[in-house]
Amino acid sequence: MRTHLLIATAVFAVSSCIAPQTVSSPTSEATNSASNLYDKVLSETRARLDSAIGNPIDVPVPLDAGGGYTHEQHKRNAKAIYQAGLLYEATGERKYLDHAVRLLDSYVELYPTLGLHPKQKEQTPGRLFWQSLNEAWWLVYTIQGYEIIRDDLADDKRGEIESELIRPMAEFLSEGQPQTFDKVHNHGTWATAAVGMTGYVLGDQSYVEKALLGLDRSGTGGFLRQLDELFSPDGYYNEGPYYQRFALMPFVLFGQAIQANEPERGIFERRDGILEKAILSTIHQNYAGLFFPINDAIKDKGIATQELLYGVAVAYELSGDPALLSVVAEQGRVVPTEGGRQLATDLSAGKAEPFPYQSMRLRDGANGDQGALDVLRASDDPNGFTAVVKNTSQGLGHGHFDKMGLLVFDRGSEILRDYGAARFLNIEAKYGGHYLRENDAYAKQTIAHNALVVDRTSHFGGVTEEGNKHRPDIGDFVIGERISATSASIDKAYPAVTLTRTVALVNDPALEAPVLIDLVRGAGEGLHDFDLPWHYNGQLVETNYTIDADTIARAPLGDQAGYQYLWKVGEAELPNAQAQTTLLLDNRFYSLTSAVPEGTHVLLAELGANDPDFNLRREPALILRTPLSRSASFATVIEPHGEYNGIDEFTLASHSQIERVEHVEGDGMDVVQLHLKSGETVSVGLAGKSGSSEQHIMQTDSGAVSWTGPYEVIGSDQGE
Amino acid sequence: MRTHLLIATAVFAVSSCIAPQTVSSPTSEATNSASNLYDKVLSETRARLDSAIGNPIDVPVPLDAGGGYTHEQHKRNAKAIYQAGLLYEATGERKYLDHAVRLLDSYVELYPTLGLHPKQKEQTPGRLFWQSLNEAWWLVYTIQGYEIIRDDLADDKRGEIESELIRPMAEFLSEGQPQTFDKVHNHGTWATAAVGMTGYVLGDQSYVEKALLGLDRSGTGGFLRQLDELFSPDGYYNEGPYYQRFALMPFVLFGQAIQANEPERGIFERRDGILEKAILSTIHQNYAGLFFPINDAIKDKGIATQELLYGVAVAYELSGDPALLSVVAEQGRVVPTEGGRQLATDLSAGKAEPFPYQSMRLRDGANGDQGALDVLRASDDPNGFTAVVKNTSQGLGHGHFDKMGLLVFDRGSEILRDYGAARFLNIEAKYGGHYLRENDAYAKQTIAHNALVVDRTSHFGGVTEEGNKHRPDIGDFVIGERISATSASIDKAYPAVTLTRTVALVNDPALEAPVLIDLVRGAGEGLHDFDLPWHYNGQLVETNYTIDADTIARAPLGDQAGYQYLWKVGEAELPNAQAQTTLLLDNRFYSLTSAVPEGTHVLLAELGANDPDFNLRREPALILRTPLSRSASFATVIEPHGEYNGIDEFTLASHSQIERVEHVEGDGMDVVQLHLKSGETVSVGLAGKSGSSEQHIMQTDSGAVSWTGPYEVIGSDQGE
Ligand SMILES: [Zn+2]
Ligand SMILES: [Zn+2]
Repeated sequence: MRTHLLIATAVFAVSSCIAPQTVSSPTSEATNSASNLYDKVLSETRARLDSAIGNPIDVPVPLDAGGGYTHEQHKRNAKAIYQAGLLYEATGERKYLDHAVRLLDSYVELYPTLGLHPKQKEQTPGRLFWQSLNEAWWLVYTIQGYEIIRDDLADDKRGEIESELIRPMAEFLSEGQPQTFDKVHNHGTWATAAVGMTGYVLGDQSYVEKALLGLDRSGTGGFLRQLDELFSPDGYYNEGPYYQRFALMPFVLFGQAIQANEPERGIFERRDGILEKAILSTIHQNYAGLFFPINDAIKDKGIATQELLYGVAVAYELSGDPALLSVVAEQGRVVPTEGGRQLATDLSAGKAEPFPYQSMRLRDGANGDQGALDVLRASDDPNGFTAVVKNTSQGLGHGHFDKMGLLVFDRGSEILRDYGAARFLNIEAKYGGHYLRENDAYAKQTIAHNALVVDRTSHFGGVTEEGNKHRPDIGDFVIGERISATSASIDKAYPAVTLTRTVALVNDPALEAPVLIDLVRGAGEGLHDFDLPWHYNGQLVETNYTIDADTIARAPLGDQAGYQYLWKVGEAELPNAQAQTTLLLDNRFYSLTSAVPEGTHVLLAELGANDPDFNLRREPALILRTPLSRSASFATVIEPHGEYNGIDEFTLASHSQIERVEHVEGDGMDVVQLHLKSGETVSVGLAGKSGSSEQHIMQTDSGAVSWTGPYEVIGSDQGE
Repeated sequence: MRTHLLIATAVFAVSSCIAPQTVSSPTSEATNSASNLYDKVLSETRARLDSAIGNPIDVPVPLDAGGGYTHEQHKRNAKAIYQAGLLYEATGERKYLDHAVRLLDSYVELYPTLGLHPKQKEQTPGRLFWQSLNEAWWLVYTIQGYEIIRDDLADDKRGEIESELIRPMAEFLSEGQPQTFDKVHNHGTWATAAVGMTGYVLGDQSYVEKALLGLDRSGTGGFLRQLDELFSPDGYYNEGPYYQRFALMPFVLFGQAIQANEPERGIFERRDGILEKAILSTIHQNYAGLFFPINDAIKDKGIATQELLYGVAVAYELSGDPALLSVVAEQGRVVPTEGGRQLATDLSAGKAEPFPYQSMRLRDGANGDQGALDVLRASDDPNGFTAVVKNTSQGLGHGHFDKMGLLVFDRGSEILRDYGAARFLNIEAKYGGHYLRENDAYAKQTIAHNALVVDRTSHFGGVTEEGNKHRPDIGDFVIGERISATSASIDKAYPAVTLTRTVALVNDPALEAPVLIDLVRGAGEGLHDFDLPWHYNGQLVETNYTIDADTIARAPLGDQAGYQYLWKVGEAELPNAQAQTTLLLDNRFYSLTSAVPEGTHVLLAELGANDPDFNLRREPALILRTPLSRSASFATVIEPHGEYNGIDEFTLASHSQIERVEHVEGDGMDVVQLHLKSGETVSVGLAGKSGSSEQHIMQTDSGAVSWTGPYEVIGSDQGE
């Protein structure tokens, strides 16, 4: 076998050391190698393909939309061609080549007969699939499998496959749909990757140049432009991590191919190594293995998805960073390529080091000036106490209206959560697996988030185009031993109202464990109602307020902007402008203690009103509501505490350690004081837009508090 | 050191091979031994105690009820005395003996000053604790620790501890409360065990004899009588597994002590080895590590509780059965005794074999004639497809009104569930951790179960005393390759109505996987409303009926017998007397397809009405309701199917494979036919009260079906 042109296969060539006997069939008792993730994936792949080889080829006439039978079958076939190539390479067994050829032959017959797909989607129809995006995906997989077997085909067979299938498809995806191919968008990346990879395999440099520089080869479109614009300088993708991992795939695969064929282009050095940054930032955007569920995210997607298996393999090839092996251990599987084999081998050899999960700001926008995703982690434990503040841009069509929305996680679970997307992916009975109407009507709306709502309407009036125009003005992001914090504000989410949020992770010797300070403010002209929702996970165990519950009748909380999906289930007045709520989730307690404006009350809610098709999960929320005010500030301490041990029957520290939260507001600066039941006080100075040497001083009931720079803890141990 | 008298410590003596250096302190890097569960528990225990030794002794004046501070502190002290003994034995370090003595000294000072506890509970107050049960528990732990250090104490110290503390407490627990001590009840067992173990340690045979035979030494009370009556011949305890594991503890510990001191009593041979049977049956009553949550069960209790750690250690000592090592692996920990060391050593040595989880009938009642708990398991996988049918007696004061209630589990999760107890154990903010009023008012009621309700009232009118008088008449229990099944009926749950339920686990080549057939019938005089509730887990994805949902207002489903806690959330008419509902839970689909009486409709419900304190979990249910009928039969196929894979984005077999269920009813026999979408038919003959050679023949729409014996599958492969 020769050296191949696409990395995913080229690396296989490097590994011609993989003799057939190392591929353990599932029936052989390769007990030892079972511990190696590479052997495992290879034997699984082999078992799957061996069983498929016994069955007739199924290449149906395109008929169904996404999720339907023909759609899924064509996807399966592309994967089979790809995997047949990999197994042919790994084992040398002719039956795999034959299987790939049988499939390709069927497509050679079918493809020339096809017009546009009968269920064509919007402006970007495909031929095999309802949208050309899927067709590009199909070619990306197929061309990698084809490349491995190509040299071992007879000339006429090769000619037939290329002239009847591969070239027509590549032409269709490029010249045939310039509006997609030249677009700086992830659909464009799939198209350019498919065509460019095809160019390398067929030795057709015109394909490669169009792919890299756009159809007119000017560089205004094409892969390089996409690479320059689709990720921020920190590797953040503006639709969020759920879409990032999908967008990442063609970048990684085509990037590898460019490096293998034209290393002089230095593709992996471009933009200061943006491809590797994009891979790493995707990893950083997970909690307990799942992506932060911002925007239209399906919540079971995480780092174990195929795209990130490839991503990690490529990143490891680039850096050899042993921290990536920890990610592999979390993923629990590898891709069946040489990159995967290397990861598995090194992991088995015990070379893994902890992945450096840490607090970080991921700037949004091609130039890094479109807001940021701010992540605060109390430790490098992937299951540790973590907050995410969504100070990003809108996130385009999949974006939610949650400016400066907050997510909180602890011990592997969501504590304050985002609904994610209202969608049952691939479940036909649920509106064909598409986004449900509740996605726009509820999941995207501001009230579905831990974000401030003004006058029961969503940010930007719920209009995506308006949202796309604006992003928060981000303040200082600081990482420190005692305090790590972020701040942002926006005055465009509502007319004539400015929203501000500062979130700080605070350590102090007087506290059992780190706590979050969450300071939210809305202020503007005229009188407004301010709602701060907390979508909590767990069971309500204790409150400092008496709930007047709706015990025998329920009504929705409103009639628009998502409120119509929430049942009002209770209401409470707040004593002394303090709200304290304690939750129990699994083995730990969580208290939210807030200083709120006078006149604020609490609404308790549960999702599920106006849901005739039972499409929404039943999840609880509580809402702090300040009616008819010029401004409203909510200063909350979010405090994990204690332990509930049901097995050994004991409970520790089930009550909050906080007696009262005091909030003093100044001009561009705030003090939040945690008055503890122990008698100690922890003061936190917050001035999210000040130079590091700027001096602040504020008066509180218990005396003056002064600090320097944006954020500081004036701790229990520093006196007052 | 000498040979000790109580097994839990005597076995330690056997293991004097445990030199101090094998006890790895948490700071030493005993990396290798970290994999050994015994070393782990010993080093954890040592760390805990070493830290306690640094702090002042805390022996407070009794004040608080269960869950309160002084209550918990006295419990902690007993454990500390016990653990100090174990560590003194294991390490020989004097500081552990000293710590035990310091604690005992404080109790020597305190105990003589105490009258009855200020918060005394009902008829059985203690002195250290609000109930004497806790006091017995305290002495069981303390006497084991004391026994280890006793010989190394000065005579006067020993005399003081025994005359001021141990003897007075033993007297208080025996002569001081004859009504509890002589009672055939688990509270009595704790008392007899405490007093009997004390007798062996002090060498006072009168204590031992009272403990074994009752205060009057006649055998009408005492431990032996308790052993004879509290477990059924199959080792089932009539309150269910949650209480069984607690009741088991004194049996196991005192049993060991009797064996060590008076082996001639053959305590472990008594009643054909009832103690070992009780331990094993407790293990069998778990799913995915948690006990079947029947009766007042807290759902997070399972096989990893202390009681069953001891139980497994003792069972292993008795039988050496390597299947128990699999249980240890599931438990993930061992007790810090020689028994625990042996388990850990053998587990580490790879000696474990699978525990034989299997279908079984556990008869209830001292003579095995009070109904049965019937368990149907599709495999020996502890996380496999499993059904539990509660054909037991009432279960006394902790019993629920769920005659012939059904639980279904699959892939480690509940599919059709029981609410368990409405209680937040040890959570002070929730009614002091006691049973909530919703426990009686909802959790115990029939509608809270997957059990047939007549006229919206609970079995036995919800009166425990009435329930205690009756139990189901159980039919044949059969285990087979193609079908395993159980049947039972009762005519006393409602006046003039007979309830019958047959549950069968069925295998057939035409089915993707085993299914459950659930045939429920109510029949009697006059017209009744019949409600069959399904408390399902997961998300509703598909129904064959159109739901008329309560989208903008909700009201409770009723006003008594638990109905008042369920919101009505929707209603549906059923086409063709067939109900089909498909759920999605994690990665698998579950369809319930029922043949129901004409006129039956579906009610959809969610828990949480009339719950002003947010005490209840929000869980969904659906109810098949047949109004105003003389009888109603519901023949349901419960079918796990397909796969939802969110990570790799595919879905398989999301629809039920069942087109229609046909039910033909005869005199004491039924046929349930599964008409599959594939065109095949699987017929199941059910006649739960017939001899194994009895012939049955019934006519169905598609011809005659005949079978022999109680249950048979006339499969798709057998023609018709
Ligand atoms: Zn969202
Ligand atoms: Zn129950």
